[in-house]
Amino acid sequence: MRKVAVLGSTGSIGTQTLDVVSREPDRYEVVSLAAGSNVELLLEQAHAFRPKLVSAGSRELAKRIRTRLPAGTRIVYGDEGLVEAAGGAGADYVVCAVMGSVGLKSTLAAIESGAAIGLANKETLVTAGHIVMKRAADRGVPLLPIDSEHSAIFQCLNGEDRRAVKRLLVTASGGSFRDRSREELAQVTVEEALRHPNWSMGAKITIDSATMANKGLEVMEAHWLFGLPYDRIDVVLHPESIVHSMVEFDDTSVMAQLGNPDMRVPIQYALTYPERRPSPASPLDLLKAGALHFRPMDFERYPCLRLAYEAGRAGGTAPTVFNAANEVAVSRFLGGEIPFLAIESIIASALSRHETLSEPDLDAIMAADDWARGEARTVRY
Amino acid sequence: MRKVAVLGSTGSIGTQTLDVVSREPDRYEVVSLAAGSNVELLLEQAHAFRPKLVSAGSRELAKRIRTRLPAGTRIVYGDEGLVEAAGGAGADYVVCAVMGSVGLKSTLAAIESGAAIGLANKETLVTAGHIVMKRAADRGVPLLPIDSEHSAIFQCLNGEDRRAVKRLLVTASGGSFRDRSREELAQVTVEEALRHPNWSMGAKITIDSATMANKGLEVMEAHWLFGLPYDRIDVVLHPESIVHSMVEFDDTSVMAQLGNPDMRVPIQYALTYPERRPSPASPLDLLKAGALHFRPMDFERYPCLRLAYEAGRAGGTAPTVFNAANEVAVSRFLGGEIPFLAIESIIASALSRHETLSEPDLDAIMAADDWARGEARTVRY
Repeated sequence: MRKVAVLGSTGSIGTQTLDVVSREPDRYEVVSLAAGSNVELLLEQAHAFRPKLVSAGSRELAKRIRTRLPAGTRIVYGDEGLVEAAGGAGADYVVCAVMGSVGLKSTLAAIESGAAIGLANKETLVTAGHIVMKRAADRGVPLLPIDSEHSAIFQCLNGEDRRAVKRLLVTASGGSFRDRSREELAQVTVEEALRHPNWSMGAKITIDSATMANKGLEVMEAHWLFGLPYDRIDVVLHPESIVHSMVEFDDTSVMAQLGNPDMRVPIQYALTYPERRPSPASPLDLLKAGALHFRPMDFERYPCLRLAYEAGRAGGTAPTVFNAANEVAVSRFLGGEIPFLAIESIIASALSRHETLSEPDLDAIMAADDWARGEARTVRY
Repeated sequence: MRKVAVLGSTGSIGTQTLDVVSREPDRYEVVSLAAGSNVELLLEQAHAFRPKLVSAGSRELAKRIRTRLPAGTRIVYGDEGLVEAAGGAGADYVVCAVMGSVGLKSTLAAIESGAAIGLANKETLVTAGHIVMKRAADRGVPLLPIDSEHSAIFQCLNGEDRRAVKRLLVTASGGSFRDRSREELAQVTVEEALRHPNWSMGAKITIDSATMANKGLEVMEAHWLFGLPYDRIDVVLHPESIVHSMVEFDDTSVMAQLGNPDMRVPIQYALTYPERRPSPASPLDLLKAGALHFRPMDFERYPCLRLAYEAGRAGGTAPTVFNAANEVAVSRFLGGEIPFLAIESIIASALSRHETLSEPDLDAIMAADDWARGEARTVRY
């Protein structure tokens, strides 16, 4: 029986992880759950899964549910609580699905504990890929990707010699605005931006999908997860979101993983790997889809992706700045404070004003993160 | 260094195998070559590769080139010669690419010798799958598929637990007449039938591709190679011939292998497995392809495929009858003797008049083969 910790249990990945886990109660024991502000859902989950430990976003939030928790469930809170939920509850498998840069510390704690990691937190590898990959390798801990694209690549690499990989082909749906002109993008509303054509996801990632910043973060993650330079990671537009990504090998063979857009498939694969188990997802009907389209990525149309490649190639603290500036810019857009196209200007501005530091340690990463957030809050666009 | 025998060296698969082999002279030594009637090409190949043994289709054909062979190359002929080329020249890898039912004996001889088998001869598994798979398993000999579809499935199964396979999706281009009505098919000429839209192949297989008999034989082969019942092997029309086949797993994930239509890729993979080596094939440009289409298979449009499923499900000698009747009918069509649509009527007639024998031994298979050929030569259509 697998002892599972779910960090970010009330988010989109977290709830879907618990959906997968709940279907095979004989295979999984949930030992800890960590959430941010949605403590009412956390409370429900605590009653459903009876973990040893839950962690809430703050002391006040913890207080709000403390007396209503099931007997035997202890509550902690804040960043320290998150770290304890990751490494201190005896989990042998930790799903890291906390959003944003707070995910990093808890992922490192989970690696330190020796648990296998199901990784859904993008910032972990984007900001500290050089540290995380090394610590995971030193500790012998497997890092299993949960993102559909990385899971697809991981599946395409099954049984293959990684030295025979020529390049990765990361697919991108194009997001909610893929058919709009740059002129039209200047006017789009938050409500429009939140309507993703294929995937049902959280607000931040849906905006990141519309700007292609999300794909940029995925390219950086792929760089670290699969150890390939940026010129061997390509992005291709694929509006149907059925081919989740591909790998081209030296012999010109291209392996692809296909399926309906349902995050429960990659989540489950990360949990059961190398096994495959029946899934609640609906089987792919290629005849109904009829056609799969592939179009070149347009870096003029999607400057955030170009900026991500530039930040990735620059390395060091540049990806942290890209990510932090993007996080603040998206939050400002969602708050109605700035127009959609200001997101890219804010990232570009922060990157151009940043002096990149190579091989940063955690403190240097945090400092770059802080600096970029300050920039992104105040910068002209 | 791999010691390779190429049976059917002057055919389409044979010449492409030698093309692959010639590109890495340090990896391969060609120890024997067997051909049918094209002895002038066999002679050229003998001078290029200096095998220990060559085999020609008959005594007369052998005589024609005997004095012109390189020093150190011995010549044999006929069915016995083919068997000697397979098992008697010290090959540790035998490419079985002889066309038609004469391939079976030489494949069995190769298995007996303990060599790994690169299998391109369809009839081997279609007529004697129950015998061949057992002997290969008993002898511990790997059977590596060379057909693009089976190679694709084999690649999709890399690193996977075969118990998690839900079904195989074999793709079919639809052949040279995929856009013609049944009425138009009644009138088509041999020249038209030989124009395959995607693949450059021999005459017999190009006709089999237009009738879909070829796909029927591939379904039967897949049944034996991957050990799945017929109701878990589906055929889907895919006009671009870029997705070479797919595997659906229990978790709804579908793995696919893609590439340009170039037989040198699956030939090389069968030779280098589990390694992948650089290939002379041109890399796939999905952006140039733009779209991949999938359409349901129409069993009314392609009755040969329906007949193949029926013969496969009936088992025993029925697939042998399907194959032999088809072989004769195609040869009669290529000879201008019968119209295109008579191919299916001849197969149907032979199958309906045949009394299926289960678990046939080699003699019973040969007898059914003979009987079906006689039927197909004389039957009304």
